[in-house]
Amino acid sequence: MVGLDKKIIALLSDFGTKDGYVAAMKGVILEICNTVKIVDITHDIVRQDVRNGAFVLATAAPYFPDGTIFICVVDPGVGTERRGIVVEGKRNFYIGPDNGLLMLSVQREGMKYVYEITNKKYMKEEISLTFHGRDIFAPVGAYLVKGIRPEEIGKEIFDYIVLSQERATIKDQKIFGEVLHVDGFGNIITNITFEDLKQIGIDFDIVLDIQIKDQAYKIYFSETYGKVRPSELLALIGSNGFFEIAINQGNAALKLDISSGDSITISKSYSNTNF
Amino acid sequence: MVGLDKKIIALLSDFGTKDGYVAAMKGVILEICNTVKIVDITHDIVRQDVRNGAFVLATAAPYFPDGTIFICVVDPGVGTERRGIVVEGKRNFYIGPDNGLLMLSVQREGMKYVYEITNKKYMKEEISLTFHGRDIFAPVGAYLVKGIRPEEIGKEIFDYIVLSQERATIKDQKIFGEVLHVDGFGNIITNITFEDLKQIGIDFDIVLDIQIKDQAYKIYFSETYGKVRPSELLALIGSNGFFEIAINQGNAALKLDISSGDSITISKSYSNTNF
Amino acid sequence: MVGLDKKIIALLSDFGTKDGYVAAMKGVILEICNTVKIVDITHDIVRQDVRNGAFVLATAAPYFPDGTIFICVVDPGVGTERRGIVVEGKRNFYIGPDNGLLMLSVQREGMKYVYEITNKKYMKEEISLTFHGRDIFAPVGAYLVKGIRPEEIGKEIFDYIVLSQERATIKDQKIFGEVLHVDGFGNIITNITFEDLKQIGIDFDIVLDIQIKDQAYKIYFSETYGKVRPSELLALIGSNGFFEIAINQGNAALKLDISSGDSITISKSYSNTNF
Repeated sequence: MVGLDKKIIALLSDFGTKDGYVAAMKGVILEICNTVKIVDITHDIVRQDVRNGAFVLATAAPYFPDGTIFICVVDPGVGTERRGIVVEGKRNFYIGPDNGLLMLSVQREGMKYVYEITNKKYMKEEISLTFHGRDIFAPVGAYLVKGIRPEEIGKEIFDYIVLSQERATIKDQKIFGEVLHVDGFGNIITNITFEDLKQIGIDFDIVLDIQIKDQAYKIYFSETYGKVRPSELLALIGSNGFFEIAINQGNAALKLDISSGDSITISKSYSNTNF
Repeated sequence: MVGLDKKIIALLSDFGTKDGYVAAMKGVILEICNTVKIVDITHDIVRQDVRNGAFVLATAAPYFPDGTIFICVVDPGVGTERRGIVVEGKRNFYIGPDNGLLMLSVQREGMKYVYEITNKKYMKEEISLTFHGRDIFAPVGAYLVKGIRPEEIGKEIFDYIVLSQERATIKDQKIFGEVLHVDGFGNIITNITFEDLKQIGIDFDIVLDIQIKDQAYKIYFSETYGKVRPSELLALIGSNGFFEIAINQGNAALKLDISSGDSITISKSYSNTNF
Repeated sequence: MVGLDKKIIALLSDFGTKDGYVAAMKGVILEICNTVKIVDITHDIVRQDVRNGAFVLATAAPYFPDGTIFICVVDPGVGTERRGIVVEGKRNFYIGPDNGLLMLSVQREGMKYVYEITNKKYMKEEISLTFHGRDIFAPVGAYLVKGIRPEEIGKEIFDYIVLSQERATIKDQKIFGEVLHVDGFGNIITNITFEDLKQIGIDFDIVLDIQIKDQAYKIYFSETYGKVRPSELLALIGSNGFFEIAINQGNAALKLDISSGDSITISKSYSNTNF
């Protein structure tokens, strides 16, 4: 069993910050357990975009101490038959809707059990139609902090939902990937890894032929920002370990008019003298 | 006296998050009392919109544990003669300008006393013209946490300001209400309650005739989102207990071009077979 | 040595709130030291605008208790040769890039030592190219909380970067200044102080001739908002001690089309009867 004594609850949602929704969840948590430390991951996930939520969660969760309880709500299916779940990973607990939101992070740390939330004893007395974050997930998280075992919250299930994860593919010395996420700086983060690049002989300090959305670019693949001038495009391995396209001190996604889901193809450029 | 030992201060303002204003308040609080837990409700209240602040506060405050100290600043009258107040409710303390901001929440939990803030001992030494959140309300809140009684902060007053609250009215089998709030999802939250609906014989699973801003709609009143298709309008009782109009996985306010204050009229539709 | 036992880390960055970057920093901090209180100043600094970051930090830092550890990341030079530093001020510690971001606040409280961050023992094992906030500054801050002395983190340096600070100048009974910051309310905050105004005989309750961006205005210099009507321009001393131009219950920067860096000239208006 992972340690529950560290007492950190981390929250992620698409609720935004102009309403009282997130605070209501925090109130519910503190009412049950007023010593827990609550940390916001973000509440600005693209509305009802489960994949965006899963990606952002996966960029933050690995850095939290063992035993963190993640309560995550990006939940277009709220008010339908979709289940609520508690996932016990090798290090942490994850609570939220059974729609794949939690699973990318869980798979990376290693999964132990998934439980369907059914025990009304650990929910608010009145369950609203539309706000399970406040009425179900928040109290369940607070009770886990207090030492309630997930087995008491519901039965183990095995048919939970996992989002298909498109991995980049390689063919004819080309890598075919897609844009996973555009971050707030306009960095274009893809599903291509350094390992993928190495398979077709790409290493730092060469020029790549990159095609995004039917537009072709020659972009320098650099180990440091310092090698290109401000306002110039560059390719790099970003802080999440993925291949990114950025502009030194600028916004690449805006300039290239890219958004998540766009396709990207990479190959070594013939213009490299060291090809 | 409500318990002061739980040590939660909850903040609400229209300060936004790009300036240092909220952090300055937190610094002042922590300087006086560095063990208190500070929770943000939101700082994105519509600028200087006291009604919006009062509404959002009322959606979050009921979920906080007894003894929470709410410091709230939506304060178009700062720098004028308007008073600052501490309100002792049946469960919690509320601190802010005397402009009605606090009273919707206080009335719901039950009011005990209202005090005008006058004792300079519990303020910053220098009081700026424009930032009473930092110089008056934050220190007063921190001193309450430390056990100072509100009577020491100023005299009880009885002529505090209460915002008029338009309740929905019923006439000729029609309910006349207004839009209280549009939330971040685009849900249109009205001042109409389930009790109002029942008075003219409306229950779940019927079609309603709804007129908003001189436009007529037929909208299904549902207990669950699952009963309508994605992108379809539906009416429901929202998580705050009010009648809402939403789009399943979409933004109703954007589609219907609605904002707070718009009028809404509801009646049973003749098209209901069960009418 | 300033007290490390109060255990507050305050964060400022231009990371925005839609990504997992800030949360990753918090996770790293809590992994090393899970008792520290983490306070967000803001993560909405104008992207890569070091001056904006320095200004906002300086409006909040003075209000925090002694011994606060500020971790600040506005870092257009990340991935280049720019150094990371720990600054020991008279009251607080400041951690971030050596680009001037920290120095405005440090100069105000008084500087003791500046150390270059070099000891890999206090960084994450793998240092990404682009995210020193997570991999260097966050762990260094957490280790300071745990009592590590800044001398252990790196050697003292003396050639750190200080941003030039344009102070307002006075000539021929006119003050020549510039706009430092436009806050979220649209208040226009300048680098002109009350002392500057007094030098040319300006006090409250007179009309000023103000020229901004080649446009001339007559604006009343008031001690309180209450002296002008809603929607009317006024000049005042703002909560940071600087000369500001505001609109009572409105947005001055929007109306006057002003942004930071714009020049401003002030003199007494001949239209004052008390001139």
